[in-house]
Amino acid sequence: MSIRVGIVGISGFGGGEAMRLIASHPSFDLVYAAGEGSAGSRLADRFPGAPAGLADLVIERWDPATLPKLDVLFASLPTGTSAEALARVPADVRIVDIGGDHRYAEGWAYGLADVWPDRIAGRTRVANPGCFPAATLTALAPLLAEGLIEPGNIVIDAKTGISGAGRGGGDSRFGYAESNENLVPYGLLRHVHVPEIETTIERLSGGSAAGLVFTPHLVPMTRGILATIYCRGRGRGRDRASTDQCLDAARRFYAGRAFVRVTDRPPQTKWATGSNLAFVGYAADPERNLVIAMGVVDNLGKGAAGQAVQNANLICGLPETAGLDGAPVWP
Amino acid sequence: MSIRVGIVGISGFGGGEAMRLIASHPSFDLVYAAGEGSAGSRLADRFPGAPAGLADLVIERWDPATLPKLDVLFASLPTGTSAEALARVPADVRIVDIGGDHRYAEGWAYGLADVWPDRIAGRTRVANPGCFPAATLTALAPLLAEGLIEPGNIVIDAKTGISGAGRGGGDSRFGYAESNENLVPYGLLRHVHVPEIETTIERLSGGSAAGLVFTPHLVPMTRGILATIYCRGRGRGRDRASTDQCLDAARRFYAGRAFVRVTDRPPQTKWATGSNLAFVGYAADPERNLVIAMGVVDNLGKGAAGQAVQNANLICGLPETAGLDGAPVWP
Amino acid sequence: MSIRVGIVGISGFGGGEAMRLIASHPSFDLVYAAGEGSAGSRLADRFPGAPAGLADLVIERWDPATLPKLDVLFASLPTGTSAEALARVPADVRIVDIGGDHRYAEGWAYGLADVWPDRIAGRTRVANPGCFPAATLTALAPLLAEGLIEPGNIVIDAKTGISGAGRGGGDSRFGYAESNENLVPYGLLRHVHVPEIETTIERLSGGSAAGLVFTPHLVPMTRGILATIYCRGRGRGRDRASTDQCLDAARRFYAGRAFVRVTDRPPQTKWATGSNLAFVGYAADPERNLVIAMGVVDNLGKGAAGQAVQNANLICGLPETAGLDGAPVWP
Amino acid sequence: MSIRVGIVGISGFGGGEAMRLIASHPSFDLVYAAGEGSAGSRLADRFPGAPAGLADLVIERWDPATLPKLDVLFASLPTGTSAEALARVPADVRIVDIGGDHRYAEGWAYGLADVWPDRIAGRTRVANPGCFPAATLTALAPLLAEGLIEPGNIVIDAKTGISGAGRGGGDSRFGYAESNENLVPYGLLRHVHVPEIETTIERLSGGSAAGLVFTPHLVPMTRGILATIYCRGRGRGRDRASTDQCLDAARRFYAGRAFVRVTDRPPQTKWATGSNLAFVGYAADPERNLVIAMGVVDNLGKGAAGQAVQNANLICGLPETAGLDGAPVWP
Repeated sequence: MSIRVGIVGISGFGGGEAMRLIASHPSFDLVYAAGEGSAGSRLADRFPGAPAGLADLVIERWDPATLPKLDVLFASLPTGTSAEALARVPADVRIVDIGGDHRYAEGWAYGLADVWPDRIAGRTRVANPGCFPAATLTALAPLLAEGLIEPGNIVIDAKTGISGAGRGGGDSRFGYAESNENLVPYGLLRHVHVPEIETTIERLSGGSAAGLVFTPHLVPMTRGILATIYCRGRGRGRDRASTDQCLDAARRFYAGRAFVRVTDRPPQTKWATGSNLAFVGYAADPERNLVIAMGVVDNLGKGAAGQAVQNANLICGLPETAGLDGAPVWP
Repeated sequence: MSIRVGIVGISGFGGGEAMRLIASHPSFDLVYAAGEGSAGSRLADRFPGAPAGLADLVIERWDPATLPKLDVLFASLPTGTSAEALARVPADVRIVDIGGDHRYAEGWAYGLADVWPDRIAGRTRVANPGCFPAATLTALAPLLAEGLIEPGNIVIDAKTGISGAGRGGGDSRFGYAESNENLVPYGLLRHVHVPEIETTIERLSGGSAAGLVFTPHLVPMTRGILATIYCRGRGRGRDRASTDQCLDAARRFYAGRAFVRVTDRPPQTKWATGSNLAFVGYAADPERNLVIAMGVVDNLGKGAAGQAVQNANLICGLPETAGLDGAPVWP
Repeated sequence: MSIRVGIVGISGFGGGEAMRLIASHPSFDLVYAAGEGSAGSRLADRFPGAPAGLADLVIERWDPATLPKLDVLFASLPTGTSAEALARVPADVRIVDIGGDHRYAEGWAYGLADVWPDRIAGRTRVANPGCFPAATLTALAPLLAEGLIEPGNIVIDAKTGISGAGRGGGDSRFGYAESNENLVPYGLLRHVHVPEIETTIERLSGGSAAGLVFTPHLVPMTRGILATIYCRGRGRGRDRASTDQCLDAARRFYAGRAFVRVTDRPPQTKWATGSNLAFVGYAADPERNLVIAMGVVDNLGKGAAGQAVQNANLICGLPETAGLDGAPVWP
Repeated sequence: MSIRVGIVGISGFGGGEAMRLIASHPSFDLVYAAGEGSAGSRLADRFPGAPAGLADLVIERWDPATLPKLDVLFASLPTGTSAEALARVPADVRIVDIGGDHRYAEGWAYGLADVWPDRIAGRTRVANPGCFPAATLTALAPLLAEGLIEPGNIVIDAKTGISGAGRGGGDSRFGYAESNENLVPYGLLRHVHVPEIETTIERLSGGSAAGLVFTPHLVPMTRGILATIYCRGRGRGRDRASTDQCLDAARRFYAGRAFVRVTDRPPQTKWATGSNLAFVGYAADPERNLVIAMGVVDNLGKGAAGQAVQNANLICGLPETAGLDGAPVWP
């Protein structure tokens, strides 16, 4: 089966990673690519290692009015720039939006694919979770589902590689010399991803109000996200959550799921590099009624293009793992 | 005035940084260096950029019985290996122990130099704080001193550059290819630095019991520590701490102190690289009664050799800043 | 078709990369893995992101006497340690030796797959080129084949990422803190790869004596090799080689070949990361009769496991690109 | 003695490093700083670790008409932008130009301070060598002075850290994610530094015509330059240069000079980081009449601000090492 797909935002890191994954997907054919800075150039000019079959595809200027016939469109546009244009995409073109404009928007499924694949299958508009939420929610979902933690008292200390800030240019904060050997906290008490995480926590916990502190940090590496999450346990007395209980909850929750690995060692970002895997780990201290949850993803994999392809598989009725079985690149 | 100093543990990162600082110190003369792996070689073999005056100093095998006449000895030995040997150093040789064996040991001052210089001046045995405690306690001290936070409920998410793990060799976890592009949490719920931090918190808060969660992470950079610290405020109702109150408390606490910079932007590790500076920043959310404190140091500067030289200045009656006025290396 | 393959040396970087490639190969089944440090552990203990189907494979202690029935064995052992053991592997097990012990050894084909696939197809013992030779020879082959350069006067300034030095541990030279932000030339005038390069140059140039200067450098990055090669042109007067002539020679030489990309921009190491691609570029100055050739590979891809799988494909009569069509990981 | 100095171009890496060095210089007082992007802000806004005494200096918009009374002006402006403005600086203000506009310009001394200090002392207009020329010429000078190599046949394979490309912003090529794990050759056969190197080679070799190939590479590290230089020996028969002859020539040439270290190991960039040191090493193969010279500097130290301060010391009649005795930062 050949499914015709397009990517808008091919010049960015998320769009480029989508291209890489689609290029070796057994059912997807990339027939359209659009980008801002790179319009007019061939795919191989922008990606010297692009597969031979895609090398001569000309990158177009993004305009929903000139789309070719497509089955699926991957959109990877800066947040705030895509809502109007994507609304003009024909209804029979399924869309996976990697960007931030449609998370919990009306008519869009929230594509947390490992957690609720059934809410995604068969939909035609899916909003990919943000990269921080992907790491965070994958780790928290089993604890919330089993009521092991308080949804109202969660501290997320999140760390991302610098590709999470998008491509350089125009912003010296992300220059090599400025970023290398530097660790930078930012956006304290006001990060854009908080509402998305809170809404999902509430759904996962059956409606309890979520309360979050979210502190992102830029780490001098290209890819990778680790969320270290400090939670208050919900149990009382001898029922307080132990490390094993948390691990077991996660093993149950993700039993039979392809992309989430439950680990009894603290997960490291490099375990996921280049893959669609997520790693979750836990450490609990019943005496203090504390649970530490850890979630690791590649911010461009499960945090962006990997999960987008997984969502596209779900909405097209393909095996969820199609095109996503590459093992992580190590070292 | 010429003060005769020695370094034991010159082959390690802390000892090497002590050598660098002492080499441009106006009153210290390095007359003795001892090391394990490098015994028998000249200082210039080990440090090709060593100052000309020190290049030919021969590194000796460490033996307290063969010490030359010294005024100050800097010890930078692996934790667990120095107690017995340092006990045999003559009483008239002042010791600053950068290693971990004498923190809160009997007869030793705890050398948190920016916080309590008076407890160090005139002492002859000073134990340098660990690198994580240095970053953490410098940020927390003003809040504890003014009672702005609960000492019993503190979550420390700490991140260190890899030189904090000591020199490579023998441990592939710290190999370049394994560590680069990798972010690694470790030692969950059982980090060795916790007792030292708890004891100091209790002293700073007038005896209230401290309760800590401490999670260290290895970050792919050579130098630098950031502690992001989540605290519960102590105030009630309209008295809950605001960001400005925390900043003001820190400005008051460190008024006239040379090495601590209070910043209203989140501090970045690179601001401190190569220097003895510490940066502290705060963000509070009175509505949730939350205070986030951030402390940044160079783990080999204020976190090791820089603070050691500062302590040596204090115990020798020198100006606290002698030899420590170098600005950070940037970029 | 299912081909039973094994890897010996799975704990090393080359062996690990072979595992990654084999895991998504359409015809290869990994049924045996042996390693030194990791014997007894499951594959997933060593590679947390290993594909689910391989996770429980137990790594064995390497012993040719206990090999299961195999069609192909990939050997990735330290140079100097494999000759005797590989001689004891049954003759019907085809071997691709990624290590250095059988290059131009009797009975072994030299597996420069992009240059002479016909010399490899149907063989049962193939020695993979070294990583430096792979980058160098891929760039030089077209020039030598068309007689554009003097084989007797070639200066190779080669740069490799640190995974080229093998796994850390035991050698602090490759520790993160020691290697990061450091660029290190080594092995001047006596690099182990020179004979292999010289022999191949002589074959490619029809027997002319090769003369090489080879200077390797360690670059602070994990993967990637660039060889910048300074050659004297062979043409006289108006026949001296131009940049375009060199590029055309390479386009002719590699016409129809899947893995070598001829580029008119200077090639960058990141173009190849994670793939089996090689990039070659040229700049000539006829006035000075100078040709600069540049070759880029991923040292673990084309420089090791990628080329090994390509060689295995050739000896098994599979399509050369089977399991090797993954695009490079970028950024 | 207090010498009033100013810096124009304080926002750039070279200007920032000049600030760092001047801040701990025993005779220089920074009384003026001008910058493009940062005009109007305090020095401490731009450099959070700036020494307390300089923190409140306000960065001005650069205008030679509004200079305060100065003894020395350090100019660190992009090449092509400074000639006209610097011509308007009063004649009694001595200028050291770190930028590229006055190298071998009329009336300007070429400030190769370690090689010909006498040509600099007492001058009022000194053009700092470029960073690549600094590394290259320091290594070649002794060989040229003793006639050990042919000036007409020199291949320079040069590698620089990314701060050599200037501050990020506006150019995504130098973004962290694009530059990290990437090694990039550029500017083949047409690098801007060639004329400056050729002119100096001709002076050092007593007028023989220089012939150069110069290939720069961007290395994923912040600071550091290594030039690996391939030369043809000048000697004949048994007089061909050996490694020892080259080392001895360098030791003679730099005898008594403070900043050049002759090393019999291949020099590494990290040996120089943060210092004004240069390291030179040699490997010769008399049989092939080949000499490899290697030069290492910190591109912002000896390659920019360090040499600028050294030149300012020379023109002010101060000890050459004033303010420059800091040992390299390691690791």
